[in-house]
Amino acid sequence: MTTTQLISEIRKKQSFLCIGLDVDLGKIPQHLLEEEDPIFSFNKEIIDATHHLAVAYKPNTAFYEAYGLDGWKSLEKTIKYLNENYPEIFTIADAKRGDIGNTSAMYAKAFLDNLGFDSITVAPYMGKDSVEPFLAFEGKHTILLALTSNEGAYDFQTKQLENTELYKSVLQTSKDWKNSKNLMYVVGATKASFLSEVRRILPDSFLLVPGVGAQGGSLDDVCRYGMTKDIGLLINSSRGIIYASHEKDFAEAAREAAQKLQLQMQKILSE
Amino acid sequence: MTTTQLISEIRKKQSFLCIGLDVDLGKIPQHLLEEEDPIFSFNKEIIDATHHLAVAYKPNTAFYEAYGLDGWKSLEKTIKYLNENYPEIFTIADAKRGDIGNTSAMYAKAFLDNLGFDSITVAPYMGKDSVEPFLAFEGKHTILLALTSNEGAYDFQTKQLENTELYKSVLQTSKDWKNSKNLMYVVGATKASFLSEVRRILPDSFLLVPGVGAQGGSLDDVCRYGMTKDIGLLINSSRGIIYASHEKDFAEAAREAAQKLQLQMQKILSE
Repeated sequence: MTTTQLISEIRKKQSFLCIGLDVDLGKIPQHLLEEEDPIFSFNKEIIDATHHLAVAYKPNTAFYEAYGLDGWKSLEKTIKYLNENYPEIFTIADAKRGDIGNTSAMYAKAFLDNLGFDSITVAPYMGKDSVEPFLAFEGKHTILLALTSNEGAYDFQTKQLENTELYKSVLQTSKDWKNSKNLMYVVGATKASFLSEVRRILPDSFLLVPGVGAQGGSLDDVCRYGMTKDIGLLINSSRGIIYASHEKDFAEAAREAAQKLQLQMQKILSE
Repeated sequence: MTTTQLISEIRKKQSFLCIGLDVDLGKIPQHLLEEEDPIFSFNKEIIDATHHLAVAYKPNTAFYEAYGLDGWKSLEKTIKYLNENYPEIFTIADAKRGDIGNTSAMYAKAFLDNLGFDSITVAPYMGKDSVEPFLAFEGKHTILLALTSNEGAYDFQTKQLENTELYKSVLQTSKDWKNSKNLMYVVGATKASFLSEVRRILPDSFLLVPGVGAQGGSLDDVCRYGMTKDIGLLINSSRGIIYASHEKDFAEAAREAAQKLQLQMQKILSE
């Protein structure tokens, strides 16, 4: 999916919501455990109930790998279901991969080609040749970790690296990489005040913003500091939506939680 | 496996060789493609031919994920085969994972618990709370990326971060994390001269050193700058061993390539 198509979907749905599909079998309604593939059944109901309110879905691969082969099967079924039934949805493999060049190329093939995700999150620590193999995929997007939403972000990312912070160095340096037009960036909502700094370096890039909801970030603050004329934001919520209820009404509760965020977004877009 | 056991194996085998199982179906002998599980068949023959010459095996997950479900199956079978037949071998999931706390805990469960690897490689970019969930596993090891073997290492890792280089900051900072005794570090052989700097910060820690062979690093240089009284090194070779021949004699050729390195190691250990 191109960035232009994504922007068009955002305007149409009046939403820049991304829903994180981080499925923990200990947290889903217990009646689903009787299904053949509880994770996929859960995802399918969540997607069917919320697809008109969200523009993107983001399964985090950790939650699938934790269930081994069965988990990997559920991931395959989930992305296939999204691509076949809701091709207008932007899909993100939240995988945080990154390795030496020939190895990154294998990861890129796995997620962007074989599984058919529109994008993948990538860690920047290993530099240019660990990221460029992902950028080589036309019409696909690489979402580079810049400033993450967790406490550990202050260990290295915000430290001074040659007269600027490490995360700013990542933003600045990556602009010169081959096919950098295919880059988006992760910037945590819990660091909203940093967003104006990010926008000085990247006035137009799309930012994937986790940390609204369970982690305590504010949607209004993120939009105040981070929104561009073409929106430029995908706001992720995972636990706040998919675990809005742990009972049989979980999909309906997820729809309501997503709707609440979508209405806030609609209001912000109209201002 | 404890570090003491690993050191004892190294002394017994007179080898600190780690063999990287990075299986590319385009590079393995073509007769194996007729097998039910070509990747596992390849690994099994390599392991059977070289296990007496190596103390560790390191499948890189990218090469398995690139083949989807089948690849994940091959990975499961490979680690199971190692654990059942060669329990004295130290196993490394070269996964380079790292995410916010609850998500890193899922990765840790996937690789250290379910799959039963002795260790996993982890990226440090997201800081303390992204790494500590891995460190919590007793008798398991977390191998933190410090200074990688690729060109992109110079993009961020060697840059000055608050009066020291980023990779040194990673080494220093991580020493204070909970259960840091379970840490090992990745330092590329292509950066051998940096090893004396690493040893100033970490006089005793085990280092996993990729980059000997195809990437051009020198075994002698790595040992000169990096070896401790308890060895403290695992030298990885992947392509140089597993693709020593692309014909039916691939396992025998791998054995010869591994033997050559083991003999060099034996000589170094005797000096």
